[in-house]
Amino acid sequence: MTPSRRSSSTEQAAHPWQQADIRSLLTRAALAVGAGSPTDAGVSWAPLEAAPRPIVLAGGVPDPETLPVADLSEAFRRVLEASPQDALRYGGVLGFEGLRSALAERQGRSEGISLQSDNFIVTNGSAGAIATICDAFVEPDDVVIVEAPTFSGSLRTFRGHLAEVVPVPMDSRGLLPDAVASAIESRRRVKLVYTVADYHNPTGTTLSLDRRRELVRLCAEHQVLIVEDAAYSDISFGAPPPPSLYALAGGQGVLKAGTFSKSMATGLRVGWVQGRQDFIEALARVRFDMGTSPLLQRAIADYIGRGKLETHLREVRPLYAQKCDALCRSLAQDCGPYVRFGRADGGFFLWVECVGARAQDVAREAAREGLVFPVGSLFYLDGEQADTAHVRLAFSTATLEELAQVGPRLRAAFERAVGER
Amino acid sequence: MTPSRRSSSTEQAAHPWQQADIRSLLTRAALAVGAGSPTDAGVSWAPLEAAPRPIVLAGGVPDPETLPVADLSEAFRRVLEASPQDALRYGGVLGFEGLRSALAERQGRSEGISLQSDNFIVTNGSAGAIATICDAFVEPDDVVIVEAPTFSGSLRTFRGHLAEVVPVPMDSRGLLPDAVASAIESRRRVKLVYTVADYHNPTGTTLSLDRRRELVRLCAEHQVLIVEDAAYSDISFGAPPPPSLYALAGGQGVLKAGTFSKSMATGLRVGWVQGRQDFIEALARVRFDMGTSPLLQRAIADYIGRGKLETHLREVRPLYAQKCDALCRSLAQDCGPYVRFGRADGGFFLWVECVGARAQDVAREAAREGLVFPVGSLFYLDGEQADTAHVRLAFSTATLEELAQVGPRLRAAFERAVGER
Repeated sequence: MTPSRRSSSTEQAAHPWQQADIRSLLTRAALAVGAGSPTDAGVSWAPLEAAPRPIVLAGGVPDPETLPVADLSEAFRRVLEASPQDALRYGGVLGFEGLRSALAERQGRSEGISLQSDNFIVTNGSAGAIATICDAFVEPDDVVIVEAPTFSGSLRTFRGHLAEVVPVPMDSRGLLPDAVASAIESRRRVKLVYTVADYHNPTGTTLSLDRRRELVRLCAEHQVLIVEDAAYSDISFGAPPPPSLYALAGGQGVLKAGTFSKSMATGLRVGWVQGRQDFIEALARVRFDMGTSPLLQRAIADYIGRGKLETHLREVRPLYAQKCDALCRSLAQDCGPYVRFGRADGGFFLWVECVGARAQDVAREAAREGLVFPVGSLFYLDGEQADTAHVRLAFSTATLEELAQVGPRLRAAFERAVGER
Repeated sequence: MTPSRRSSSTEQAAHPWQQADIRSLLTRAALAVGAGSPTDAGVSWAPLEAAPRPIVLAGGVPDPETLPVADLSEAFRRVLEASPQDALRYGGVLGFEGLRSALAERQGRSEGISLQSDNFIVTNGSAGAIATICDAFVEPDDVVIVEAPTFSGSLRTFRGHLAEVVPVPMDSRGLLPDAVASAIESRRRVKLVYTVADYHNPTGTTLSLDRRRELVRLCAEHQVLIVEDAAYSDISFGAPPPPSLYALAGGQGVLKAGTFSKSMATGLRVGWVQGRQDFIEALARVRFDMGTSPLLQRAIADYIGRGKLETHLREVRPLYAQKCDALCRSLAQDCGPYVRFGRADGGFFLWVECVGARAQDVAREAAREGLVFPVGSLFYLDGEQADTAHVRLAFSTATLEELAQVGPRLRAAFERAVGER
């Protein structure tokens, strides 16, 4: 064939793709999370209508005024001045040794255990940590036990690994070990239990010490891995949370996912898995992305090394406690008959039960008042079937003045929503 | 039970994990890439023995002296000053819109096609791009056709998705379309063809225009996706490479993986996939890591927006051409009878055939001379069975003075290795 004939046949041949159904090419796992279905918008928040001065109680994101911008900027400048060639070169899938040893020192101290840098692998935030754990350990049809409700992003990750997700109920002291035991005993192939033990997302509860011990015992007995999502563990309002599951288990059978997203900034996208060395090595094997940026990791290590992280946390913890109280007060004053909730001991969220109205209706009417937050059903596997009663209010990004306005606005939303019931 | 009894039962119960075989918990995919096998060290380079002034010709990494440190430092400073809250907050799995539109503009111009930001998703380098493509499209036992030899990291990624990898031979004008056609026709479930069409890793060859057209026609006819790895495409020594497969296909059925690793710095870990919008949306669905750092992405967008990338490339291209020539000259002068190679038109590598000695022996003896490079077998699925004749010499990081020393050192290595044959 001549080049020109080939060229014209190429142009013709491009057509088959235009009619092609992408769904026939996608993996089962990709289809399970909605790939190839452009109409599914994924997680949706209540839409913000044309309201004056909207108040956003949506995401688990630090207060933008607290972001350590100057110190981070200085850290990047210093790293690029002191070690530009190391910072701008592949750093390996385990991550920068200096950051991993800083994590070993810090987590070892706060958890009262002995850790080395080999107990850590650096990931794209704790979301990347959980995805990497699934890549290594979750085979299609493996059972993953989760709290009901739980973080919607992790639910998506488990579904995207074709796990059978089994929700287990929780109460004000966290998930119920007896329910975990029943789930383990009634099913084959239970691979892991996923728990946000400290300042739970979305409920704000903290797993009690006796239940922690029972969970560790139970999972060791059945050789079920515990994935401890510690995203919010640094954000305590008073006493620190109970000992970590990792510490209680002596590091055996627990993979702990951590992140700088809540303690510093979500945009850093730097998190980690803490685990037994052979587990960390296994996670490194399934990292195909050649690691995250050593520049970011070195800047954070510099920031930690100069004591900035602890100083920063000492500043932001009382702020979040104050914000939590401001929201609780505003709700109690103005929404008394419509809401039930318990004050969190840390983290970014208040989990509010709606009395006399469906959460979906409350969220929709609240949006008309300029108040944006997710309904509780987003945090369940079965969505609305499982929960029409709760909403999750994040108090982390709104100002104290805005939080004082939540009660009146939510009351107006309830007054309309109750009528629809 | 009392707390103290629980505590002691916890300590006892941790023991089952100490005897546990991690392999019984790992996925088939993780086991396929060596997870749970601590003795397998993965890709190994020839060890550097105690030699004076070692010369490293190992990785596909830019010259450290060229790293745009000052401009990047300035870009980070500027982004953190101008938009700290956006830079330090979740940026979404698709990536920063400003970087994606800069990519659309730049790639559209250089490839002579029309692209929008919706044609791009930002990833952890091109390695992350290829892993994400596999997450969405490669089901266990799907066939992935690759060039023989090919980039070892991508081979690992395909194996880690349980693909059946089918190598296809290449010559000095790149992979052989007839061999691709045979592979497609002889097997079910051929899902994709992976090619480094420009300045191939490890061989340095560039796929000819007529073969590009034939490959595009063939793959469209059989609805086989093309994954075009363009990691080295910006590093041309003279004329730019032929039109991209993406451009020849009118964007249909081709996913093109790009990166700033070679044009700027490997430590940025920022790459992308360029593809039809519905394919990009599908890739976004299988990203469970909540995206890479918007701070990095904004700093790079700032750098590009100020015209720095094109200026930088105009500076480094002649340098790499000069280095390639220096290495070719040194080999021709000192290793004439022992080596056969073709000069590359771009990229970082020279693929050298060893005459009269096994590549493994040459590499081992070269290490004793202080010369470090990988043997060719690392770039084949079947390793030593497939290739005992080649070595890959990267000329990108060594200085011109060092490159002039390669010939004499390699000659000494050959002289000893030939004797062993």
